[in-house]
Amino acid sequence: MANITKKVSWSSRGDDSGLAGEGTPLLNGTEIPKPSRQLSGSGSVFRIGRFSTVDLEDDITSEEDPIRGRPKEIPHNEKLLSLKYESLDYDNIENQLFLEEERRMSHMGFRCLEISRWVICGLIGILTGLIACFIDIMVEKLAGCKYQVIKENIEKFTEVGGLSISLILWAVLNCAFVLVGGIMVAYIEPIAAGSGIPQIKCYLNGVKIPRVVRLKTLLVKVLGVICSVAGGLAVGKEGPMIHSGAVVAAGVSQGRSTSLKRDFKMFEYFRRDTEKRDFVSAGAAAGVSAAFGAPVGGVLFSLEEGASFWNQMLTWRIFFASMISTFTLNFFLSIYHGKPGDLSNPGLINFGRFESDSVAYYYYELPLFMGMGAIGGLLGALFNSINYWLTIFRIRYVHRPCLQVMEALLVAAVTATVSFTMIYFSNDCQPLGPEHNEEYPLQLFCADGEYNSMATAFFNTPERSVRSLFHNQPGSYNPLTLGLFTLTYFFLACWTYGLAVSAGVFIPSLLIGAAWGRLCGILLASFTPTSPIWADPGKYALIGAAAQLGGIVRMTLSLTVIMVEATGNVTYGLPIMLVLMTAKIVGDYFQEGLYDIHIKLQSVPFLHWEAPATSHWLTAREVMSSPVTCFNRIEKVGTIVDVLSNTSTNHNGFPVVVQVLDSDEPAKLCGLILRSQLIVLLKHKVFVELARSRLSQRKLQLKDFRDAYPRFPPIQSIHVSQDERECMMDLTEFMNATPYTVPQDTSLPRVFKLFRALGLRHLVVVDDENRVIGLVTRKDLARYHLGKHGLEELQLAQT
Amino acid sequence: MANITKKVSWSSRGDDSGLAGEGTPLLNGTEIPKPSRQLSGSGSVFRIGRFSTVDLEDDITSEEDPIRGRPKEIPHNEKLLSLKYESLDYDNIENQLFLEEERRMSHMGFRCLEISRWVICGLIGILTGLIACFIDIMVEKLAGCKYQVIKENIEKFTEVGGLSISLILWAVLNCAFVLVGGIMVAYIEPIAAGSGIPQIKCYLNGVKIPRVVRLKTLLVKVLGVICSVAGGLAVGKEGPMIHSGAVVAAGVSQGRSTSLKRDFKMFEYFRRDTEKRDFVSAGAAAGVSAAFGAPVGGVLFSLEEGASFWNQMLTWRIFFASMISTFTLNFFLSIYHGKPGDLSNPGLINFGRFESDSVAYYYYELPLFMGMGAIGGLLGALFNSINYWLTIFRIRYVHRPCLQVMEALLVAAVTATVSFTMIYFSNDCQPLGPEHNEEYPLQLFCADGEYNSMATAFFNTPERSVRSLFHNQPGSYNPLTLGLFTLTYFFLACWTYGLAVSAGVFIPSLLIGAAWGRLCGILLASFTPTSPIWADPGKYALIGAAAQLGGIVRMTLSLTVIMVEATGNVTYGLPIMLVLMTAKIVGDYFQEGLYDIHIKLQSVPFLHWEAPATSHWLTAREVMSSPVTCFNRIEKVGTIVDVLSNTSTNHNGFPVVVQVLDSDEPAKLCGLILRSQLIVLLKHKVFVELARSRLSQRKLQLKDFRDAYPRFPPIQSIHVSQDERECMMDLTEFMNATPYTVPQDTSLPRVFKLFRALGLRHLVVVDDENRVIGLVTRKDLARYHLGKHGLEELQLAQT
Repeated sequence: MANITKKVSWSSRGDDSGLAGEGTPLLNGTEIPKPSRQLSGSGSVFRIGRFSTVDLEDDITSEEDPIRGRPKEIPHNEKLLSLKYESLDYDNIENQLFLEEERRMSHMGFRCLEISRWVICGLIGILTGLIACFIDIMVEKLAGCKYQVIKENIEKFTEVGGLSISLILWAVLNCAFVLVGGIMVAYIEPIAAGSGIPQIKCYLNGVKIPRVVRLKTLLVKVLGVICSVAGGLAVGKEGPMIHSGAVVAAGVSQGRSTSLKRDFKMFEYFRRDTEKRDFVSAGAAAGVSAAFGAPVGGVLFSLEEGASFWNQMLTWRIFFASMISTFTLNFFLSIYHGKPGDLSNPGLINFGRFESDSVAYYYYELPLFMGMGAIGGLLGALFNSINYWLTIFRIRYVHRPCLQVMEALLVAAVTATVSFTMIYFSNDCQPLGPEHNEEYPLQLFCADGEYNSMATAFFNTPERSVRSLFHNQPGSYNPLTLGLFTLTYFFLACWTYGLAVSAGVFIPSLLIGAAWGRLCGILLASFTPTSPIWADPGKYALIGAAAQLGGIVRMTLSLTVIMVEATGNVTYGLPIMLVLMTAKIVGDYFQEGLYDIHIKLQSVPFLHWEAPATSHWLTAREVMSSPVTCFNRIEKVGTIVDVLSNTSTNHNGFPVVVQVLDSDEPAKLCGLILRSQLIVLLKHKVFVELARSRLSQRKLQLKDFRDAYPRFPPIQSIHVSQDERECMMDLTEFMNATPYTVPQDTSLPRVFKLFRALGLRHLVVVDDENRVIGLVTRKDLARYHLGKHGLEELQLAQT
Repeated sequence: MANITKKVSWSSRGDDSGLAGEGTPLLNGTEIPKPSRQLSGSGSVFRIGRFSTVDLEDDITSEEDPIRGRPKEIPHNEKLLSLKYESLDYDNIENQLFLEEERRMSHMGFRCLEISRWVICGLIGILTGLIACFIDIMVEKLAGCKYQVIKENIEKFTEVGGLSISLILWAVLNCAFVLVGGIMVAYIEPIAAGSGIPQIKCYLNGVKIPRVVRLKTLLVKVLGVICSVAGGLAVGKEGPMIHSGAVVAAGVSQGRSTSLKRDFKMFEYFRRDTEKRDFVSAGAAAGVSAAFGAPVGGVLFSLEEGASFWNQMLTWRIFFASMISTFTLNFFLSIYHGKPGDLSNPGLINFGRFESDSVAYYYYELPLFMGMGAIGGLLGALFNSINYWLTIFRIRYVHRPCLQVMEALLVAAVTATVSFTMIYFSNDCQPLGPEHNEEYPLQLFCADGEYNSMATAFFNTPERSVRSLFHNQPGSYNPLTLGLFTLTYFFLACWTYGLAVSAGVFIPSLLIGAAWGRLCGILLASFTPTSPIWADPGKYALIGAAAQLGGIVRMTLSLTVIMVEATGNVTYGLPIMLVLMTAKIVGDYFQEGLYDIHIKLQSVPFLHWEAPATSHWLTAREVMSSPVTCFNRIEKVGTIVDVLSNTSTNHNGFPVVVQVLDSDEPAKLCGLILRSQLIVLLKHKVFVELARSRLSQRKLQLKDFRDAYPRFPPIQSIHVSQDERECMMDLTEFMNATPYTVPQDTSLPRVFKLFRALGLRHLVVVDDENRVIGLVTRKDLARYHLGKHGLEELQLAQT
């Protein structure tokens, strides 16, 4: 077979692999031996080597203009994999300390832990519900004030003329809100931008996105989303709720706040990645549950994103958190609305109840629904493509905070202007019925007792607009209004997603879909004026909304359940499923889902569900990093400090080996130790002098590792004196003595399955005498993906 | 650490492990070294060694009476683990043949496979839907005829006297149906007894239950369930639907029927356990979906039972199968009911639609609901306990087919008698309203224009009775009727489950719960006569039904969704969740779920989600079987035949090793080969003469293995001549060259996680030089379970 690959990883700060950098940097850092036998198969690797991967922070180059002097352009290409993202340890580090603790723990102890887990999930549910409640009430209050002020202003100026002043007022109010939100996000916590769903997906997948579950992120996210929705942007508050739930979970489960420097000395057992991940998935589910009043949908959402670690007890806990979250939200909202105890209005968003009698459907409508699903898929792919190019543009040119805030302001102003223009030129007047649901009916140039129909769509929070489209009487909108609205809102929403504001894409998608769906319904009704079943365009609005949302985000199972739970009627289960599936199939043909695009554009080493189909001809030998920096079981402190300090090879996991005396052979594997563990050991000076008398005052315990988790100090902050450098360090007790290993001939799909199923961070490749010959990390696996022309290999880079 | 355990496995026919039997049989075949250091922990092993594990087929002994002569008593104890169940290979066997095939396959080839998978799922959905349709129509026809005949008879004899003739008629009709069903199950296919859900759970878990997915089983199951429901037993037809769906899936996905000896030469790629399992989970989901009109519930059911192998694409395929199944059923039922195209009545069972206006609930009802959940949990635990003792009794004394049929007949006759008596002595007459839903209203001794209320509950198929309890007007039942009905039906249902008939437990549970739930509602209403909210006892019937079902089967997430989908109203989502969770928590305190009890009583080596909490002090060294029978890479045919023929060590997996010359040390691991592969090799005589010229005509291909799958011939059927015995066999091409391995110090939870996450069958334990020192199989892991007093170890036995 092929010789051992030598991959040279240079300037790979943040690389997971224990890869010893040697040799000079090459522009194409990767070299894969392709034995001719294997090339005969269909899966051939296309190497993407157009871009130099020189450390971009110091030496900024661009695709078009590699000369220095235009530093504002950051080159970007989605065929890169960033090295700055590290992995989370979703596999327990079973070292002696851990095993001793587990063995000491009684049956009762495990029961107590289990009860703590339930308690934490309850807390997560309650807090998430409260946050959702807060967001909802604040948005309602602020948006209410804003629309009231503008409405009065418009009414004042409609007759005397000078509506341009109203326009300016509207634009200024919008910009003011967005300015606050934008500044917070751009200057204080950029990770809080967007819906947060891609970040949570990555987290559950096992990628450590810096600062994604911090308290500051939560604050900025919550306040930011209030500002952006109140600022009239084409955004929803549901995505950020999911992120908020995840942050709450990560915080509560640790029993302390590192940001606030408070440690409640609770839940210390849960201070590791595995446990935290379980709670974060509960938090995300609670967020979905609060946002849509969909507890089952929440569980399914977490499932669709991170099912590889599922088990029954965990499912139930997640379900519990979701239930509590919906319940809390409902309870407090019912008090706020003055009807305490009425729990029939779950969720932040409320689509209104579809009663089954009025909206039955017949089987011959199903092809129509599927057609709408296909349209949704097409429009979704268009949306995603436009947003993709926009995001590339933003990465290249709009990367300074001030520019980002200015863009957000521009969008806010344009949104107000476009809305105003549309309303102004619309002559779609509808009678103001006795039971109209409009919160802010604008009369404008309509006759008395009538209101401007375009204004119900634009002059409203998006949630209310969706509900109006679903439930208003047939004839409330004329087709031109809906058509124009769809067109403008489509581009506004597309422009808005990806701005430096905290904002979700669910509601805008639903709104676009509801608009063209209702349009379809009206058109169909006009073709068959005698048949009663077309009578309700609200039904088509619902189907259109599902199609559009499915076309953009490409979830099926969880989205079906969310839609069913949010509409409160299971009759539409089957049509919604069909529509979502059609939208997904059609959409996937052209473009990936929106969240996947954003994950890819961030160059996150995301592991999909399975290895690419045509990757069987790759083996561990070819994908692994090699040679590997190993430590001896008893290692010199100086060596450890030097390896850890080496910024060019910032490895995180090191196999521990037993030296074979008088031999140059690779040594036999006996364990695996992490950078974070070594840091704690160095910090506590757990050294052994050569005379074997311990320097350290006390024996190191698991608690010391837990206290340092998750923000381990950098090696630079730890001072090691020259004397100490000469000491030895005994790693036996701290290393994971039984790391998972694979032989070098293992096929990539097999390695991938092992890695994904167990949530590994490092997988040691050994030869048939158990000697370390390589190390597989997340990035080694994420590099391979299936492109249009077969297997492609992504380039690793520092971006 | 401890010395290597030597477990002596004797008369272990069907054992998975490659364990060389040596030494003399001991009564306590297992010996576990317990280093004193480890015993200091809480997890101490209680050995259960009361029963001799002498091969019970030949030498029947019993607990009470160890003397021969009473062979009809089969001793049984749930602290045994049967050796007769083998494991399925849910990990792909990646040998050279497989890898070469995968490497040859183009990107397009994988696309086609993916499309085939979708097509198969569609077919599974359609066929499952058709079967459900067939069952539904047949049951309705047969039960309709039966009740019509009895009704006319009763009406004839009510006035003239001699109702005992009606009773006899009723009993005889019931017995006739049950006789047919019972004979089919007891004599033709005993595995078709019961609901089939425990068997499907085991299958998805990775245990090979003989004949569980065969065509004959399907036929017996379908006809059997029609007979038992038409025969008036307290059973439902929903559980068997799930089993039927699974069988359909296993059949369709293989593109052939081994029973009918037809091979359509399709879907050959899917002829292995991994792929088949994926389809079987789709089939089970389609079954649930058809039974309850709950496609999402179906997906969740499969998820709750087998989530360890989940991934997104699979979820969607399963969802697709579920959708198609509901749709097919709906479509054909709507034609049958004369309203083609009306798809609003999904599922075999139809709880009727709860309209949201009439049945709102308030938050102060939630504690009441939870109270009912607790009652459900208690009653469920009682049900399960009684059924447990009954099942033990049946295993010991009622194990002959004729006895089983007689018991079924007895139950049928008693059911008819009890029902008749209850109706006869009931004086609960209700006016026959203009819009009554009763199919067969019995007037009996009531005044004209009235009907006997007890008869709506007893003189009906259980599905209809449930619907009446949910939806009949308040006042349709008096409390005494409901109380008596609950009591009698509880014991009837409990006696019925476990009979040798094809029968589900969902509907009886719902019926019991609906009866006492409605009773609760009526009682509550009588306490607060002025409040309108208690007005609808149907609401309480629904909650009671959920509580009782949850208390018996202990599912939460999937059951919530199933109930919500079946009632067509999400308003009750939250209360149903609360109730199911309460019922589960309360019930689990006393007794396991019904399906788990039956799995345990079958001594199936079922792997739960996680290793027992207190098992960290066990390591691979202690749980593994050792020494292991290994083969050399090039092995003598005679040796292989001898090892395979050895009935005392019927191993299924053999590590392949490379001999170290001049050494007695265990040889180095280089692969793993299965008994089934060796059988195929022997059958095709893939031998190498010592002179290395091949005897075999052609090179063996994957196709040969697929053709033999899944019914590999026994070794006894393969004739190997004395000359051939001297040949050699080269295993290199056929063995899995990269089996998963663990070092011997790996803790049990870690081994367990690896095993469960990857669906392994054999896990090789190696020392630090990669030499085989043991083998871990499913039975080695399933032996340990958490009892009342900490970790317990089950005994392996041949039962």
